[in-house]
Amino acid sequence: MAADVEAPATLLSVPGISLSACSAGLYNKDRLDLALIAIEAGSSCAAVFTKNSFSAAPVQIARKHLQETMPKYCLINAGNANAGTGSQGIKDAIDICDGLAKIVASSAQEILPFSTGVIGEFLPVDPICDKLPELCSNLGADNWLQCVKAIMTTDTVEKGVSKQLVVDDKNITITGIAKGSGMIRPDMATMLAFIATDASTMPDVCRHILREAMECSFNRICIDGDTSTNDACLLIATGKNGSKPLDNVNCEAALQLKNAVTEVCVELAKLIIRDGEGATKFITIEVQGGQSSDECLRVAYNIASSPLVKTAFYASDPNWGRILAAVGRSSISNLSISDVSIFLDDICIVSNGGRAATYTEELGKKVMLKSDIVLKVNLGRGVANETVWTCDLTHNYIKINAEYRT
Amino acid sequence: MAADVEAPATLLSVPGISLSACSAGLYNKDRLDLALIAIEAGSSCAAVFTKNSFSAAPVQIARKHLQETMPKYCLINAGNANAGTGSQGIKDAIDICDGLAKIVASSAQEILPFSTGVIGEFLPVDPICDKLPELCSNLGADNWLQCVKAIMTTDTVEKGVSKQLVVDDKNITITGIAKGSGMIRPDMATMLAFIATDASTMPDVCRHILREAMECSFNRICIDGDTSTNDACLLIATGKNGSKPLDNVNCEAALQLKNAVTEVCVELAKLIIRDGEGATKFITIEVQGGQSSDECLRVAYNIASSPLVKTAFYASDPNWGRILAAVGRSSISNLSISDVSIFLDDICIVSNGGRAATYTEELGKKVMLKSDIVLKVNLGRGVANETVWTCDLTHNYIKINAEYRT
Repeated sequence: MAADVEAPATLLSVPGISLSACSAGLYNKDRLDLALIAIEAGSSCAAVFTKNSFSAAPVQIARKHLQETMPKYCLINAGNANAGTGSQGIKDAIDICDGLAKIVASSAQEILPFSTGVIGEFLPVDPICDKLPELCSNLGADNWLQCVKAIMTTDTVEKGVSKQLVVDDKNITITGIAKGSGMIRPDMATMLAFIATDASTMPDVCRHILREAMECSFNRICIDGDTSTNDACLLIATGKNGSKPLDNVNCEAALQLKNAVTEVCVELAKLIIRDGEGATKFITIEVQGGQSSDECLRVAYNIASSPLVKTAFYASDPNWGRILAAVGRSSISNLSISDVSIFLDDICIVSNGGRAATYTEELGKKVMLKSDIVLKVNLGRGVANETVWTCDLTHNYIKINAEYRT
Repeated sequence: MAADVEAPATLLSVPGISLSACSAGLYNKDRLDLALIAIEAGSSCAAVFTKNSFSAAPVQIARKHLQETMPKYCLINAGNANAGTGSQGIKDAIDICDGLAKIVASSAQEILPFSTGVIGEFLPVDPICDKLPELCSNLGADNWLQCVKAIMTTDTVEKGVSKQLVVDDKNITITGIAKGSGMIRPDMATMLAFIATDASTMPDVCRHILREAMECSFNRICIDGDTSTNDACLLIATGKNGSKPLDNVNCEAALQLKNAVTEVCVELAKLIIRDGEGATKFITIEVQGGQSSDECLRVAYNIASSPLVKTAFYASDPNWGRILAAVGRSSISNLSISDVSIFLDDICIVSNGGRAATYTEELGKKVMLKSDIVLKVNLGRGVANETVWTCDLTHNYIKINAEYRT
């Protein structure tokens, strides 16, 4: 059971974007598993991909295609990651692009393939290609919810966010969808995210906005410390709202757009954590008082990836000793124990290197029983701070991942 | 259930060492929880402690005492780690040393305190001090097994190893005991280990031997990636076998002793993994063909600490894609996918960046069903290699750690 997360009731259509989804039978059960996103000409598009050395075949092809031309289509399948599939995998990713290119009379370079699912098995190319005509004929502006269903793997709920704002007297719509609930840690994970807006930007502004938005959203979450071969996040700006293309990242309108895109990404990132595999709790880790962002992040991720801390959260056990131990193993030189304080929500649990005088087990337990918890660590040695989101580690995490392929 | 691990039937006494154990009521159940090791005068002693910034009070005191003089006693309790206890914790650790010093007519500096158990609660000083006379009067050379029982926390079996060898025509006995089954990763963990030999060494040779032995044993294991505030490993050379003290680390006799001590440490380290919290499998990760030890270790620990790899082992699922992803996220620059090969025991599962042509799921499954598995990764770019030991991640790990304090 996910930690307080619900599927979106509706997602706003974005002028310039049409979508469709269908079932290509990539799972043994009846579900959507293939999606198509069509992007009208004149759009700007930026993407960020996994840093894993073993990037999957579709990642390699999508990266290459994006360097060659602006994309017109994203073709996404769940159920098979087409990763660890060697040269055959590359050929398969190209083949499905070729298949779609023939139907829509575009070049294969204008198609970006994305895959997510089991690693190490060859992509079922024919079942996918057989469904491409159906996908193409069903394209519509209102199919975001279908599309997000089709890209889910171990996700238990659809993750989507829409936002509207007015910039320079023009309405802007942003809609983003994402999938991912395991293999999640900084530098992305088994995560796919597609964010579209009808705002108008030059390509380099689009890239800048995506990079900045990623940094404080998808790059600040951690479920199990594993990263994947297939992560990708795409930002499309169709320019259909009729405004002049933003060409300066520092202008007021670009900042407004960046903030709004960032908000969408942060909301999607949090949804991924709330739906973390087996998660029952959503934990915000704020590390303050560091000498640098880097040391704050190191502490935050050490806490966020500690199985002992995560099982304590699962058990609603205010076992703050485990938090202290996780802070202590962050290799921060000259960290002074007596300057460190730790809070669970507003309850001070540690000060001066030991249990706070005012702290009682009952106070700690009361916070730990909540499903949304803020853990604050003050290192007491500087002004840097960072926030990371994570979830607990539960029986269901083991169950989900031990039985993934059975 | 631990992965094929049994308590030692006997442990050999070491001339110059006597031990005792009793119950000080530090647990809610009837069990041994307090141990004393007495070291005869003339011994050499070396210790390695946790690198965690929040080292526990006993670690701070033991480190200090060891710098001041050669120890005569080790006083060890389970059930309470006396960590995260601030200045009160320091006072408590000193108080129990003082208490023992009065009874045995030594100085407090000659006593090394060790604690393991729950972090963040004050040490029950009086119940411990009340038992010191009993501990002192029960000292005996044959109490190693009692002693190892007294230092266990979540361990399910006693971990002890004895070894005898002949060096320069003199018999040498080595006996080592250890505890620890969670919070285990490089640079030690919630681990205590006491190794004693009647060999004779100068103190610096003793330190050298311990450091080298640690490096390829206790510093090569990983259960959950967490390290603890209380780790300590002690090597005592009593010199009671009548040989001349070794004063040169490079002489043949010192090398023989070092190898034997290393063997004892490796066996103890492996026992800790076999008894890893919830472990059902013992996994040896050999990374070969690296450009440096460092990159081999990075790959090995990324695999060893991946929850997804560990749950796949638990499920006996040859989901080698997860292994590939863990290798890929090790931040090794210019790692070429096509040069990497991966073996489960003798079965080649990955070559040329994809599933090996000869590999079948059945072959992989057959290996994965075993309780002892060797996972070999060849990076194909150099001659360095490293070995790390780990275990699987199971329902019982969650159960043990979610219910630790309940």
